[in-house]
Amino acid sequence: MKIEAVDFFYLSMPEVTTAADGSQDALLVRVAAGGHVGWGECEASPLVSIAAFVCPMSHGGCRPVGASVLGERLDSAADIERISSRIAYDSMDLLQAAHTWSGVEIALWDLLGKARNVPAWQLLGYSKAYKKLPYASQLFGDTPDDTARLGREAVNKGFRAVKFGWGPFGRGSAKSDADHLVAAREGVGQDGTLLIDAGQIWGEDVAAAKLRLPALEKAAATWLEEPFHGSAYEAYAALADHCTSVRLAGGEAAHNFFMARHLIDYGRIGYVQIDCGRIGGLGPAKRVADYAQKRNVTFVNHTFTSHLALSASLQPLIGLPDDRVCEYPVALSSLAWELSTNHILPDANGEIALPDAAGLGIGVNTVALKKYLVPTEIIVNGQRLYKTPLLD
Amino acid sequence: MKIEAVDFFYLSMPEVTTAADGSQDALLVRVAAGGHVGWGECEASPLVSIAAFVCPMSHGGCRPVGASVLGERLDSAADIERISSRIAYDSMDLLQAAHTWSGVEIALWDLLGKARNVPAWQLLGYSKAYKKLPYASQLFGDTPDDTARLGREAVNKGFRAVKFGWGPFGRGSAKSDADHLVAAREGVGQDGTLLIDAGQIWGEDVAAAKLRLPALEKAAATWLEEPFHGSAYEAYAALADHCTSVRLAGGEAAHNFFMARHLIDYGRIGYVQIDCGRIGGLGPAKRVADYAQKRNVTFVNHTFTSHLALSASLQPLIGLPDDRVCEYPVALSSLAWELSTNHILPDANGEIALPDAAGLGIGVNTVALKKYLVPTEIIVNGQRLYKTPLLD
Repeated sequence: MKIEAVDFFYLSMPEVTTAADGSQDALLVRVAAGGHVGWGECEASPLVSIAAFVCPMSHGGCRPVGASVLGERLDSAADIERISSRIAYDSMDLLQAAHTWSGVEIALWDLLGKARNVPAWQLLGYSKAYKKLPYASQLFGDTPDDTARLGREAVNKGFRAVKFGWGPFGRGSAKSDADHLVAAREGVGQDGTLLIDAGQIWGEDVAAAKLRLPALEKAAATWLEEPFHGSAYEAYAALADHCTSVRLAGGEAAHNFFMARHLIDYGRIGYVQIDCGRIGGLGPAKRVADYAQKRNVTFVNHTFTSHLALSASLQPLIGLPDDRVCEYPVALSSLAWELSTNHILPDANGEIALPDAAGLGIGVNTVALKKYLVPTEIIVNGQRLYKTPLLD
Repeated sequence: MKIEAVDFFYLSMPEVTTAADGSQDALLVRVAAGGHVGWGECEASPLVSIAAFVCPMSHGGCRPVGASVLGERLDSAADIERISSRIAYDSMDLLQAAHTWSGVEIALWDLLGKARNVPAWQLLGYSKAYKKLPYASQLFGDTPDDTARLGREAVNKGFRAVKFGWGPFGRGSAKSDADHLVAAREGVGQDGTLLIDAGQIWGEDVAAAKLRLPALEKAAATWLEEPFHGSAYEAYAALADHCTSVRLAGGEAAHNFFMARHLIDYGRIGYVQIDCGRIGGLGPAKRVADYAQKRNVTFVNHTFTSHLALSASLQPLIGLPDDRVCEYPVALSSLAWELSTNHILPDANGEIALPDAAGLGIGVNTVALKKYLVPTEIIVNGQRLYKTPLLD
């Protein structure tokens, strides 16, 4: 097959707020090759990622992503890896390239799976898919009472694991955070798995993070996620030295394999969280999963958007029998929910499985999405480099 | 002062080739505050960097760079640092943000220096500026004879240090590379400082790089630059173990302080090369310079474009008495040369100094640049988010 077309669709809710809710807009990617169509999603700024696909070349090391993709052969997993390597080299000075390529790379696996009639995880080298325990991923409440209530609601919906993040956490006193942690544990009950996401709130300030450790361990939190800037490995390692039961988690900002590896080796995290829509797609995510196994680190997906992205993010995880929990966003925008024609839903046991279908196994609801389309045009030197294509 | 306006100008040569010549286009930034004007330059894809300034917000952690800059106070160095921190947090998921912010940050130092009538390096905390020994930075010739000739020409122009990079190096056999290294040494003479840039050609392949070490050391090369992918610290460290006289150099891809620090600590480089137009401007570059001093690593500027960018890149280096060499591009495009009204030229001793003037001390030739302007428009949802402003 030859990659004939790569189309980008910028989708957005009518109003976008400063909430830490990544489902408020989306960049959907459609790839066509050999009579097949594949879909992917970038977890990234739509406009900037489109620009990185179509921009004029600046020099040999700063070429647009499109130059490495369009017209290329696509007959095997090795072809996807070859294009990845080419982009890493020919677009080394184009910072946004990894985010743009992520959605395209995902769509290529979807297409290749459909062409071969196998799920993407088989193409990645797994022979079996295991059920996963989804954690309800949600924001802290404004007050401890709200947090407790949100925890109870998640448990009542059947979730056995709940993650609280962002909101007031880390912004007030250690005492206020401790109150939220007590409430969170109360909300999820003694048997629930409790996960905490600090959303980089402490920058590089190890002392501030350390102040919260006693309350985190008292609440029996399984992990503390992203206490620091994604590249502050020294801060991660320094905090890890003070952890008794809780372990550190991070990696969502990784935009290549190396960054995830370094957070494992230098930051000494216990859980590595990979967003396929940022790291360059399924290929580098699988490489992280393999590496994490060797290092006794648990691989977790990072997803806070549509079920197309959820399926993509689960592919590198699904073949690992011991890495049990997975992120599962519970408060999606209508856009993110309506993006797909089918959804990945917890069963009676509170577990999820991937659709038993080729590629990513997720249909895209092009009809429902029309109302979210953001018409976009980029004109350089009198040439229209991008115009929103027809979504059908 | 209040930051009233930030304008971007996309400039390009009429034809852009795949040569590793970063001076073929440019993204010039003009900032206005308190009746003053400052200029900066992003070493990045112009279109994509503009998009990252004007794009609609995706969520609280993916805001456009413009949202953190426009209307902000600018009265001191601390204000620039405050805006930097805000962008790192509010645009944590906008990958291109660091490249966009770099040019704006540089322009803010230029403006603040002009407002106070002091050079930017004084604002950075240096009390004295030292002359530097520029190395002629150029590509390898197609044949060893060409390489030798290019070396002789640079020496005849008065350069006491010459760097060869890219071109055929690393693409053929180790023998072919050795021939180029012999020719390079011949060209620059026994007393010349010889520097070699591999341009990431070996990816993560330590064995391939190791094969070239004997010829590098025989030619008495001072450093081997960028043998690997910018984040492949393990490969850097593994190669460093095999070096006797030559030391490793790298860092130009760093888009934040952490990446440069990690290449020093984990990659064990001897020379850290920082491009102010990528790392987030002068502030983080100075932080790298301070850190390198503590680690006995030599700080070097990375610059392959205009003398505005050259002045910017020298500011964090200029106050260090012992870090002697600096990159000096010798084959600039006409665009990059004409960008400034004044230039930084080697003296009779082959050394360079910064202009004795406020800010960056470089004038922008707005008249000459008009012919290189690339008219650009970005329209989202019927709103024109960007249109090339008047250059005057």
